[in-house]
Amino acid sequence: MEPIRKAGLLGGGWAARFALNGIDVTVFDPDPEAERKIEAVMENARRALKKLVRAPLPQPGIVRVVDTVEEAAAGADFIQESAPEREDLKRALLTEASRAAPPAAIIASSTSGLLPSRLQADCTHPERLCVGHPFNPVYLLPLVEVVGGGETAETTKQRAADIYRSLGMHPLIVRKEIDAFLSDRLMEALWREALHLIDDGIATTDEIDQAVCYGPGLRWSFMDTFLTYRLAGGEAGMRHFLHQFGPTLELPWSKMEGPELTEGLIERIAEQSDAQAGDTGLRDLERLRDDCLVSVIHGLNDHDHGAGAVLHAYERNLRQAGEPKATGPDPALRLHSEPVRPEWIDYNGHLSEAYYVLVLGHATDALYDHLGMGPDYREENSLSLYTVEAHVRYLKEVPPDVTLDVETRIFGFDEKRIRFGHVLSVEGVERATEELMVLHVDTEAGGTRPMPQAVQDHLAGLVDKAPPDWAGRSVTLLWTGCGLQL
Amino acid sequence: MEPIRKAGLLGGGWAARFALNGIDVTVFDPDPEAERKIEAVMENARRALKKLVRAPLPQPGIVRVVDTVEEAAAGADFIQESAPEREDLKRALLTEASRAAPPAAIIASSTSGLLPSRLQADCTHPERLCVGHPFNPVYLLPLVEVVGGGETAETTKQRAADIYRSLGMHPLIVRKEIDAFLSDRLMEALWREALHLIDDGIATTDEIDQAVCYGPGLRWSFMDTFLTYRLAGGEAGMRHFLHQFGPTLELPWSKMEGPELTEGLIERIAEQSDAQAGDTGLRDLERLRDDCLVSVIHGLNDHDHGAGAVLHAYERNLRQAGEPKATGPDPALRLHSEPVRPEWIDYNGHLSEAYYVLVLGHATDALYDHLGMGPDYREENSLSLYTVEAHVRYLKEVPPDVTLDVETRIFGFDEKRIRFGHVLSVEGVERATEELMVLHVDTEAGGTRPMPQAVQDHLAGLVDKAPPDWAGRSVTLLWTGCGLQL
Repeated sequence: MEPIRKAGLLGGGWAARFALNGIDVTVFDPDPEAERKIEAVMENARRALKKLVRAPLPQPGIVRVVDTVEEAAAGADFIQESAPEREDLKRALLTEASRAAPPAAIIASSTSGLLPSRLQADCTHPERLCVGHPFNPVYLLPLVEVVGGGETAETTKQRAADIYRSLGMHPLIVRKEIDAFLSDRLMEALWREALHLIDDGIATTDEIDQAVCYGPGLRWSFMDTFLTYRLAGGEAGMRHFLHQFGPTLELPWSKMEGPELTEGLIERIAEQSDAQAGDTGLRDLERLRDDCLVSVIHGLNDHDHGAGAVLHAYERNLRQAGEPKATGPDPALRLHSEPVRPEWIDYNGHLSEAYYVLVLGHATDALYDHLGMGPDYREENSLSLYTVEAHVRYLKEVPPDVTLDVETRIFGFDEKRIRFGHVLSVEGVERATEELMVLHVDTEAGGTRPMPQAVQDHLAGLVDKAPPDWAGRSVTLLWTGCGLQL
Repeated sequence: MEPIRKAGLLGGGWAARFALNGIDVTVFDPDPEAERKIEAVMENARRALKKLVRAPLPQPGIVRVVDTVEEAAAGADFIQESAPEREDLKRALLTEASRAAPPAAIIASSTSGLLPSRLQADCTHPERLCVGHPFNPVYLLPLVEVVGGGETAETTKQRAADIYRSLGMHPLIVRKEIDAFLSDRLMEALWREALHLIDDGIATTDEIDQAVCYGPGLRWSFMDTFLTYRLAGGEAGMRHFLHQFGPTLELPWSKMEGPELTEGLIERIAEQSDAQAGDTGLRDLERLRDDCLVSVIHGLNDHDHGAGAVLHAYERNLRQAGEPKATGPDPALRLHSEPVRPEWIDYNGHLSEAYYVLVLGHATDALYDHLGMGPDYREENSLSLYTVEAHVRYLKEVPPDVTLDVETRIFGFDEKRIRFGHVLSVEGVERATEELMVLHVDTEAGGTRPMPQAVQDHLAGLVDKAPPDWAGRSVTLLWTGCGLQL
């Protein structure tokens, strides 16, 4: 399959998506810098897909830039046109490609909104032309709108959809040709409203971005207006909500006039919304929404961006406001507690073993904070603590929806090393133990370095004189009955 | 601080957000079922916040439903009105509350779009009234639009913003009063366009939801139209993009007319967009966008929903299409490789220890698949493998952006147990070893059970006759120089 395309951002994104899925790509682009620009997009795409996809991708296809439309189209199985958004230009290019391509090749246009009936008008075999409208960045966003014109064969849309699906995309077959299709109509309405807000001096681009990203935009990543409003209707339901909504459609809440919310339209929306929700009840939809929101915000938290940065600041304030955990009469330190997250549960319905270690790692961070060797100490002094050995015993499964409590004991230390252990419990029952040895290292010089005297003095007062029997144990398997050690 | 509110979904959400942040709440709501409805929202909120927030939340405040506005407002520090969206109703309620409340109490209205100048018209001390417009679910979404009317004091908006911020929210102070403020104008434009699409029979509610959630909606969770278009402008920049965009504003791509894209408007947008991007260059913005998209899609993958479900299906296909890894002449099995994800890197710039164990866990899953004891075997037979002990040696740090390869060796087994080890390497250099003991258990009966004979025969052929010296080691710390064991 060898698509042909204009090597702008969209074309480069397509080249990347095809090639990184193992498909050879031939590009025609009059831009003398085409090769460099495609490679820039390919570089971003390789980086992003390596992060996104946790399964083996095939050997990449070869991307080749050629000088003529004929050369690119001849022998192609699939052609993806991504020229600038001008109907005359696209029409000429598509017509030329349709003459050079094998009759069975699918020809798709990346147009954001031009009508396929008009684009296919001069093509040979117009029945194999359709729109395949992607979204930037093409190598990451799954949506592609598939739209046929008056002469497009049904099989063309299905074959195009299958190909897009094989590239990891989500083809949405649009049932009726319309200017700007579905996504761009919705985006365009929002964009024009935003332009009015700026034109009228009501808001800046930054304020408009905030008005989306910290609120409705978080929902739009997994649930659009209709399901959202279904939930907003609450127990009263979608019909009730729409009736209630009617009057606000008359209000000057947008520069756009809405349609009249007739009984017929309300009925149609309510029926479609019922079909969409299927058997999923209100409460389950609410929980799906909440779980997706939590995951999206946590995802953004990893980049300290948008709603993730808000959560970050909030948690930091809570930690500072929180009371320090008290040390008991025994040498155990209680420095860390943390709820089990739903995505930590494995196929057995229990906490997956990696997350025992993750939470124990957070408890280790809390110990370093307690000893005055937290992030600031480490950053300012180019010093750090490296774990060189850890021995975990998994004693008992951890169910979902509980809180994990960790107790920490110091078993020993010398000036450069600490040996300590954690006990992880749920509701007072031990679930795992971990024994660790860590080194105090100078990250710039690259070797170990003594810990400050104050830390060593602190440690001396914490050492457990009667360590538990699991401290110092090795992983052994005794053959029961014959005493043979494996 | 005791807010008063209508106990709909919005009011219940506010009650939850205040109470779960340790603030006592008094509610006035004429709905006889108010208490039950609030508790339903509280239950969702408790569940969601437990997942979202990984820091200690304060002791929850008490929520009390009272019979009169006076009772709710008297003695309150902060009042949040959330009555139905009718100006006459809201005005009467706010006026009544303003008479009963202490003069210093802030009064905020949750209205989605009514003008604060009109809402405050009859209030005593109108200067302490503003809009505080939240988004459903109020207990999770950070955005709250703060809008003042003609009589609102500047300090009122600042004080309200501070309070919202202390609840983990993102207050956006809207600079000019306008019907529907910012977010709802944008949402309303999109909603009216969507209603037209349904009214005209172009699409169903489900198709419109898909047109958002699999494409532009994924971006809107962290980056709105303006930054997106800045990137779409590519190397040519925002001014160039807007000039190019001009003609499409004339196209019938929305039922709404856009403003004329004059040179003045283009200049204003370009300047605001430059200020918004600040020092962040195009390439850095692209990478931030890509990283956020990957995290958002991975987050949705945890719930197998929307774009996350598309990724899931794609990865499954890739795994099935991928060639099986060959077994070498030595007894090591090479069954698993995986790229390091950026969020796995700790403050030292190295792979965090929990993720060594996570990846080693995936290699353990791959071993079970190899032995014919994969997810299907476990599910069909109510059998599973439990890790009872694991010993990890961290040998060498793992840098970002590399691929982790795992080799697996069987050290021994009996009919119910397997002892095996993994070596985790990067570019041929060993980074960690893990030794594990797992039990074959009957998850219904609750005890161990012999593995199938075929699995035992397979294992017999895999056992490493010359296991590495790290097999069977314990965690010990020898005091160098004096031979004293800690």
